[in-house]
Amino acid sequence: MKIIAISREFGSGGRELGKRLAGLLGYAYYDREIEESVAQRMDMDAGYVARSIEQGALRNIPLHFGRTLANSYAWKQQISILVEKQRVLKEIAAASDCVIVGRAADVILAEHDPFKVFVYADMAHKLARCQRYAQAGENLDLHGLEREIKRIDSRRADYHRMFSDQKWGRKENYHLCVNTSGLDLAKVTPYLAEYIRACFAGGTP
Amino acid sequence: MKIIAISREFGSGGRELGKRLAGLLGYAYYDREIEESVAQRMDMDAGYVARSIEQGALRNIPLHFGRTLANSYAWKQQISILVEKQRVLKEIAAASDCVIVGRAADVILAEHDPFKVFVYADMAHKLARCQRYAQAGENLDLHGLEREIKRIDSRRADYHRMFSDQKWGRKENYHLCVNTSGLDLAKVTPYLAEYIRACFAGGTP
Repeated sequence: MKIIAISREFGSGGRELGKRLAGLLGYAYYDREIEESVAQRMDMDAGYVARSIEQGALRNIPLHFGRTLANSYAWKQQISILVEKQRVLKEIAAASDCVIVGRAADVILAEHDPFKVFVYADMAHKLARCQRYAQAGENLDLHGLEREIKRIDSRRADYHRMFSDQKWGRKENYHLCVNTSGLDLAKVTPYLAEYIRACFAGGTP
Repeated sequence: MKIIAISREFGSGGRELGKRLAGLLGYAYYDREIEESVAQRMDMDAGYVARSIEQGALRNIPLHFGRTLANSYAWKQQISILVEKQRVLKEIAAASDCVIVGRAADVILAEHDPFKVFVYADMAHKLARCQRYAQAGENLDLHGLEREIKRIDSRRADYHRMFSDQKWGRKENYHLCVNTSGLDLAKVTPYLAEYIRACFAGGTP
């Protein structure tokens, strides 16, 4: 199976790029669907599953409480969710060609040799993108939004660190790093899709 | 004019990629031609011009000698070469669409808003590429070669630092970062050329 793993800064358009790639290449697309599937299997709320670990629950547990907490219900539940998410990712990867956004799929699915993309942009363009997608009339505080963008990215890096020593966002860990600042993704993604197709289809010398 | 500025790790194939892009897009291509032009104008040897600054001549001049050295002939000559190289770069950029490999063109030509590409690869693939291009029968010491690759890249970063605080190789300073590990550039570069063309031709939303 061909897997494209998209890692992305919040507000950079990684989700849109991933969806477009999937559409253009005829691959399945997974993003929030992963938490929904985990939640369904574990009979939990999808929002709870999504928030539970990516938002740093494990990081927030002080290490010196380790022993006690390791036996606590909350801890065990977090671990179960983590294990289940890995299982879902592996099932997805075995089922069909696909694009997976986030979820540390780049390292969890390493044995499938995914094509790894990192999507980023400068802060001004990330803020502008968030504003475009805000509800009409919603009043966004730009300073607060910038803090929130940084906070989410730092949680994504933390989540990634649970699975690998490969640093999130370090270009060496990806096949392609795409700066989306000022780009119309509808116009340019088709060429990225063709590039990735060429890399899969015997790009090796 | 449309400028593509290629920065690259030694052995990553950045020069080949730049040449191919220029051919595919019908742009002029500049690499060593820049030192040749400077050398011709200053009536110097092109090899001397190429080595003089990129190889760290300025870095090697101890700062506490500053005053004396600033008046020395050698120092003035280094500065003249530097100034002349910038002039050549700007003339090139004004003359026609082009691809420029290295020479800190990404920052020296910032006012032209170049499309900035960083080309890199993992060490194993860089070593393999160097071996492919070695003379037949030439005996390469892989450890020595790896040290040399790192030394050249560190000099490139030093050279870049003379013109800008933007760190050489940091993905945020480029529009696209391409990992060439295991890629056949003849097969995949056409898709990068189309992507860059799309970015130039109103990729902005």
